[in-house]
Amino acid sequence: MTERRLLLVNGPNLNLLGTRQPEIYGATTLAQIDERVAVLAAEFGLAVRAVQSNHEGVLIDQIHAARADCAGIIINPGAYSHTSVAIADALIAVELPVAEVHLSNIHRREPFRHHSYVSAVAEMVIAGAGPLGYEMAVRYLAGRLTP
Amino acid sequence: MTERRLLLVNGPNLNLLGTRQPEIYGATTLAQIDERVAVLAAEFGLAVRAVQSNHEGVLIDQIHAARADCAGIIINPGAYSHTSVAIADALIAVELPVAEVHLSNIHRREPFRHHSYVSAVAEMVIAGAGPLGYEMAVRYLAGRLTP
Amino acid sequence: MTERRLLLVNGPNLNLLGTRQPEIYGATTLAQIDERVAVLAAEFGLAVRAVQSNHEGVLIDQIHAARADCAGIIINPGAYSHTSVAIADALIAVELPVAEVHLSNIHRREPFRHHSYVSAVAEMVIAGAGPLGYEMAVRYLAGRLTP
Amino acid sequence: MTERRLLLVNGPNLNLLGTRQPEIYGATTLAQIDERVAVLAAEFGLAVRAVQSNHEGVLIDQIHAARADCAGIIINPGAYSHTSVAIADALIAVELPVAEVHLSNIHRREPFRHHSYVSAVAEMVIAGAGPLGYEMAVRYLAGRLTP
Amino acid sequence: MTERRLLLVNGPNLNLLGTRQPEIYGATTLAQIDERVAVLAAEFGLAVRAVQSNHEGVLIDQIHAARADCAGIIINPGAYSHTSVAIADALIAVELPVAEVHLSNIHRREPFRHHSYVSAVAEMVIAGAGPLGYEMAVRYLAGRLTP
Amino acid sequence: MTERRLLLVNGPNLNLLGTRQPEIYGATTLAQIDERVAVLAAEFGLAVRAVQSNHEGVLIDQIHAARADCAGIIINPGAYSHTSVAIADALIAVELPVAEVHLSNIHRREPFRHHSYVSAVAEMVIAGAGPLGYEMAVRYLAGRLTP
Amino acid sequence: MTERRLLLVNGPNLNLLGTRQPEIYGATTLAQIDERVAVLAAEFGLAVRAVQSNHEGVLIDQIHAARADCAGIIINPGAYSHTSVAIADALIAVELPVAEVHLSNIHRREPFRHHSYVSAVAEMVIAGAGPLGYEMAVRYLAGRLTP
Amino acid sequence: MTERRLLLVNGPNLNLLGTRQPEIYGATTLAQIDERVAVLAAEFGLAVRAVQSNHEGVLIDQIHAARADCAGIIINPGAYSHTSVAIADALIAVELPVAEVHLSNIHRREPFRHHSYVSAVAEMVIAGAGPLGYEMAVRYLAGRLTP
Amino acid sequence: MTERRLLLVNGPNLNLLGTRQPEIYGATTLAQIDERVAVLAAEFGLAVRAVQSNHEGVLIDQIHAARADCAGIIINPGAYSHTSVAIADALIAVELPVAEVHLSNIHRREPFRHHSYVSAVAEMVIAGAGPLGYEMAVRYLAGRLTP
Amino acid sequence: MTERRLLLVNGPNLNLLGTRQPEIYGATTLAQIDERVAVLAAEFGLAVRAVQSNHEGVLIDQIHAARADCAGIIINPGAYSHTSVAIADALIAVELPVAEVHLSNIHRREPFRHHSYVSAVAEMVIAGAGPLGYEMAVRYLAGRLTP
Amino acid sequence: MTERRLLLVNGPNLNLLGTRQPEIYGATTLAQIDERVAVLAAEFGLAVRAVQSNHEGVLIDQIHAARADCAGIIINPGAYSHTSVAIADALIAVELPVAEVHLSNIHRREPFRHHSYVSAVAEMVIAGAGPLGYEMAVRYLAGRLTP
Amino acid sequence: MTERRLLLVNGPNLNLLGTRQPEIYGATTLAQIDERVAVLAAEFGLAVRAVQSNHEGVLIDQIHAARADCAGIIINPGAYSHTSVAIADALIAVELPVAEVHLSNIHRREPFRHHSYVSAVAEMVIAGAGPLGYEMAVRYLAGRLTP
Repeated sequence: MTERRLLLVNGPNLNLLGTRQPEIYGATTLAQIDERVAVLAAEFGLAVRAVQSNHEGVLIDQIHAARADCAGIIINPGAYSHTSVAIADALIAVELPVAEVHLSNIHRREPFRHHSYVSAVAEMVIAGAGPLGYEMAVRYLAGRLTP
Repeated sequence: MTERRLLLVNGPNLNLLGTRQPEIYGATTLAQIDERVAVLAAEFGLAVRAVQSNHEGVLIDQIHAARADCAGIIINPGAYSHTSVAIADALIAVELPVAEVHLSNIHRREPFRHHSYVSAVAEMVIAGAGPLGYEMAVRYLAGRLTP
Repeated sequence: MTERRLLLVNGPNLNLLGTRQPEIYGATTLAQIDERVAVLAAEFGLAVRAVQSNHEGVLIDQIHAARADCAGIIINPGAYSHTSVAIADALIAVELPVAEVHLSNIHRREPFRHHSYVSAVAEMVIAGAGPLGYEMAVRYLAGRLTP
Repeated sequence: MTERRLLLVNGPNLNLLGTRQPEIYGATTLAQIDERVAVLAAEFGLAVRAVQSNHEGVLIDQIHAARADCAGIIINPGAYSHTSVAIADALIAVELPVAEVHLSNIHRREPFRHHSYVSAVAEMVIAGAGPLGYEMAVRYLAGRLTP
Repeated sequence: MTERRLLLVNGPNLNLLGTRQPEIYGATTLAQIDERVAVLAAEFGLAVRAVQSNHEGVLIDQIHAARADCAGIIINPGAYSHTSVAIADALIAVELPVAEVHLSNIHRREPFRHHSYVSAVAEMVIAGAGPLGYEMAVRYLAGRLTP
Repeated sequence: MTERRLLLVNGPNLNLLGTRQPEIYGATTLAQIDERVAVLAAEFGLAVRAVQSNHEGVLIDQIHAARADCAGIIINPGAYSHTSVAIADALIAVELPVAEVHLSNIHRREPFRHHSYVSAVAEMVIAGAGPLGYEMAVRYLAGRLTP
Repeated sequence: MTERRLLLVNGPNLNLLGTRQPEIYGATTLAQIDERVAVLAAEFGLAVRAVQSNHEGVLIDQIHAARADCAGIIINPGAYSHTSVAIADALIAVELPVAEVHLSNIHRREPFRHHSYVSAVAEMVIAGAGPLGYEMAVRYLAGRLTP
Repeated sequence: MTERRLLLVNGPNLNLLGTRQPEIYGATTLAQIDERVAVLAAEFGLAVRAVQSNHEGVLIDQIHAARADCAGIIINPGAYSHTSVAIADALIAVELPVAEVHLSNIHRREPFRHHSYVSAVAEMVIAGAGPLGYEMAVRYLAGRLTP
Repeated sequence: MTERRLLLVNGPNLNLLGTRQPEIYGATTLAQIDERVAVLAAEFGLAVRAVQSNHEGVLIDQIHAARADCAGIIINPGAYSHTSVAIADALIAVELPVAEVHLSNIHRREPFRHHSYVSAVAEMVIAGAGPLGYEMAVRYLAGRLTP
Repeated sequence: MTERRLLLVNGPNLNLLGTRQPEIYGATTLAQIDERVAVLAAEFGLAVRAVQSNHEGVLIDQIHAARADCAGIIINPGAYSHTSVAIADALIAVELPVAEVHLSNIHRREPFRHHSYVSAVAEMVIAGAGPLGYEMAVRYLAGRLTP
Repeated sequence: MTERRLLLVNGPNLNLLGTRQPEIYGATTLAQIDERVAVLAAEFGLAVRAVQSNHEGVLIDQIHAARADCAGIIINPGAYSHTSVAIADALIAVELPVAEVHLSNIHRREPFRHHSYVSAVAEMVIAGAGPLGYEMAVRYLAGRLTP
Repeated sequence: MTERRLLLVNGPNLNLLGTRQPEIYGATTLAQIDERVAVLAAEFGLAVRAVQSNHEGVLIDQIHAARADCAGIIINPGAYSHTSVAIADALIAVELPVAEVHLSNIHRREPFRHHSYVSAVAEMVIAGAGPLGYEMAVRYLAGRLTP
């Protein structure tokens, strides 16, 4: 059933998770996060399609594709949070509920990281909870999609 | 055991929850939130002391008091998020892990609500998840406090 | 009848009226203003409950209380005009018509006094008319509340 | 007697009052406002000369002319509030007490409407009270001009 | 038939077209532009009333007059684009579709020319196409006014 | 003949035209726009190569390629208007006349959409005319390229 | 001979000179200034046409007219210095040397008086020399126009 | 004798002195500071009334009370330095000489700590001298109050 | 007689006058300017002491020295106009009338040249008149110093 | 040996070097630069892998890949310097010494080119030296990598 | 013993103390201040070397020299506070404790006086205490240098 | 031969190189840098005159002197980079090619160090390469001066 799948989108540099700046981003790898999200989503009867790309255009293409078969989107836009109007527009266009996740608390970092174009189009934003943030996004969307 | 209690702080106007602007804040009352937080925290072996005040000074006094017998703080500073350096300083002073909760997604509202002094001292920030945000804060702190 | 009472709120330092900086605020005392407001309101069949406090929290509590038995609010937020999102939120929450009064013309003073958070939630704003401003607020609300 | 006349100045687009954007400006026409102002002023023994123009230069000429035979000025500068240093300078030059009126609460509209050059030279400013604002300006100037 | 006439408004200094700064504004005169607009409009069954003035007030008066007998407005506000809230308000007030034309590409000139108050109230804005821009405005309004 | 072809470039999310936010972008699809542009261009003896991509890099590659066989560029940079210096640099580099098109009037939307890096390198900019804007760009370039 | 006449332009409120705010503008009247300018210019073989208006449009019309029979322009734009792009554009358009005069030192007054659009198009700017400033402008233009 | 008493005011979080962030604020407790101030003031024949509160309203009330029996005020407004117009207004209202003390050098900390509303109404400001700053304030006021 | 001497101060790089960037600063040398100033001043019975230095400190020392034997100061602060609070303070300190001269029209150059600290303490400011500006300063001070 | 290879990264539009805007970027082609870099690096015993792309994502992918087999990175980010947080984050992530090269002196161009996100993560930045800048980067990294 | 000497540095215009603007700076001369500092310092066993200069370079040279034989620096940078990065850098370089003194309360003066580059490198800052401020600096450094 | 000498200018505090903040500026002394520059320049047949001063005026004087006998300038303006318009003007005036060197990467330090007035007049800017930066400047100028 189309409505029962989530798109999990991870943006630039997140493929390096677990190896890059662990003091900021932690030691968990992206594969582990994908796994944890899939397991938790399954508890709510939700499938997950996970994508990661360093290409803004690929992320937009994937978001567009979610219109066909997803019911919600979890996105960690990484550095594109702060610079990409195009990704935010793509999220608006597909008209699905969006949960935005940041591993670190972006409000404690450089000022240019305090603003996210995606936050203006997401329903929920969580920052600083580490990989747990993705699980919270699953819980939020699961509740949001439940009749 | 001191380490096993959370302080749950709600700031100005949150006493009106459930009756005030439900299109923004939802229909759940503060009492219901306190109850949900207590129940979930108990699952993790954590007690909760819930306080709400419209008085900045009372909120600071309560945060100070948490030094004696709490292991973490969940705070929805309400409008004081945007104006109170004093509350942020109090949170720093007590040196406990802090999870900040906003019922609405403050990034979709007026620009002066986009900045929170508390976000710079909290570990985790969640906005827009409604009452579920408090539960996520419990989960975060429970994990954070687990050895 | 609940609809027939006005809340008259005066903020910080206004207790000193008549003695403090008369070149800016004039020689009338707050008690005299309360009296004049009560007398004029009575002409329109309106009772008045007057409160003054230097405590932001007390002002919020009083505004909340107006939900129960007032039909409109006259407020001179004093210095909190420029710094209190919480008071403005309280005024929104109680969903009563609000008239904002400033004794001096705040636009002729320091730049930080030119902006009032309350002005964005009040229906009417008057500045620089001295104590007469309160009377004008009564007239406005009297007209506003008349069927 | 020269001192007993008020100049009532209405700026650009106010000739359309009552037909233009009634949700913002109300249904009262400018002729009705002129009439109400004249009637109320007469109660205080004051005559009124009413002018309206869409021409900044005409407004300045009229303000200058008030030096000869008026004792005070009520002005709704309309859109020129936000852009005309010249009108503000004219008001300073004639050295008469000025009451500024805005039909709508300009502080709830676009940011560029929040600042008025005239407010820095007026004694009193009222916004958001609709046509009643003009009456309040009469009351203010009547009291101001009373020995 | 009232709906079948366009108002063509040209603002300050445009009377000098063809003689002034041809490297920026080109060699076509205003009379030639008026002629081209009239000819093209006639193809769409539209009459045109052309006005030019260096007086902001005259421009406002003319815009007001369009309410009586025009179905749309083509305006090149010239320098008033950047400074006149009053003209923009007049355009809002008459509630006709507005097409804004700039001969030069204002975005390649001084920063203060990048912002136009009129752009916020026009439906369509064209800049840099020279006299052709007026023809495009005719085409746009012709299509816009066609049932 | 090389000089007789136009490149028509559409940026991110414009592939969704006709289905996405029709209240802002209208119901016409991109295929229909491509068709209309091709038909009109043919009237002027111009061929058209139409490209759309959500990838900033692809757009740059395509602009570069136009050096070989195009005489002008029509571009709707979509969200990249506001963030891409690289696309603007590419347009400068190929030294062809550029016409910039926006379906909606970007000056009536969020402030971050008011600025376009491309506008500083385009000859002509049109916004708010819907699909007609592309046709106007064709007319402009056709005139521009005519000896 | 056309080249031997200067246009002397005085802007809004300068008709009140000598009576208005003498502590800022001095006691000399505009007629006296016109006289002094004419006398000094005559020494250099220059005629003078003096105009004053409170109307921006009249000032622009007069500047345009100078193209026909003047060799230079002395202008005190008064308050329009700070707000009128249209007057500055008119001065550019007529392509005559411009000397800008301010009676008071505008750099010692309110910040909004520190910027003049006219200064960016004038050759010479003098402020704070009182009526002598006009004489200096005559001297400057006399030298400038001498072969 | 009324003139011989100082009010010593400490603002939010200063009750935690000696235990909170000693690397910034040092190890001295507030009680020790109160004691040192009292001892030194006594040398100059001055009594001291010391108050500390986390409540902005309480601080204002105390400042008001000083009008009755104090000759000067030493204040460390803590975090309220940066946000409280109301405290600054209270200090103006009581018309006593004010010495402002900050334990740390606020100019070396976050930018929002560089500005103090109180500094604009204090006679003397000292920052970064630690507890010694209070003693310096005593010395200053002692000299200031000496005939 | 002390009152009958002017100090003529030229700041950094002005020693190069006549050889440096003649398209901006002209071909007259500083020695020629000194000469012209001395000659004209003599006509008014004024002596002149001319100094030039590239050293901010030397300029300040010279200004201080003027207290002893000068009645007025003509200063072209050059690049120090835009950066030196110290020179402006020196000018205030000596309490002599100051005329500020700029050879070029600084308002047509880079934005950082539009502001001069000296303009806020000078009585008169002239820019863009070339060497004639110095003569105008002499005329101004001569008139200013005449009883 | 892994440590003995440099990654040479060139960003958008740099493939056009030698043909595009030679007045800004010079006549050398990218192939020539790659050659010169390789030759000079070889003198220091360093291999070079040269990549150029107009795709931000490709650049990030290549930077990531450098972790495996490069000892340092020379990057000319082109227009992405000013807009790409993602590339800067990638450079941080791979934890290699970075030398940033700009062919032109970006500080003499438009203001938006003055800031580079990459400069905040590079060790060395050189601008305006043309192709020589790349050689200097080689020399820097050669010295940096020498034990 | 090297550690027992203080450098007392006074910046531009402070040589005029006691004669210049006494309403701001008081009537005490610099010689008197030097004397008072020397006397008080002697009580703590500290010698003092006092320097004053209007030359930024001299001040830097003197600060450098302090490395050889001083244990701390008292500096009133005067106007250079607001403009000299070089003096602040010199203070950092010599790695001695710095106490910054301002005679007047710079926070009550023009906005450009509110910021001091030196405050970011000083340990202690005092403003508005007049000559007493220097004595407080002595006391601070005496305490600071005491083992 | 005049063209064969370089001026090497080092600004304030650089005399302390090698002893001051080695974590930022390294351990090389200025004498060593002068030596390395001279040796390398000699390889290109260039002589070097090295000057260092903490006095802005001396630096300007030296730059002026270079007109007589130098063919290019290497300058590390130190802190004057950020504050001295006068030095930048001097560099423009002498019309020699300028290479700007910063030992540290100023873009990674405080924001006020990110802007250099000199960068707008230099041909080449290098930062963060340590003493090697001077050598690169030699190489750049050597190439630049080669026919």
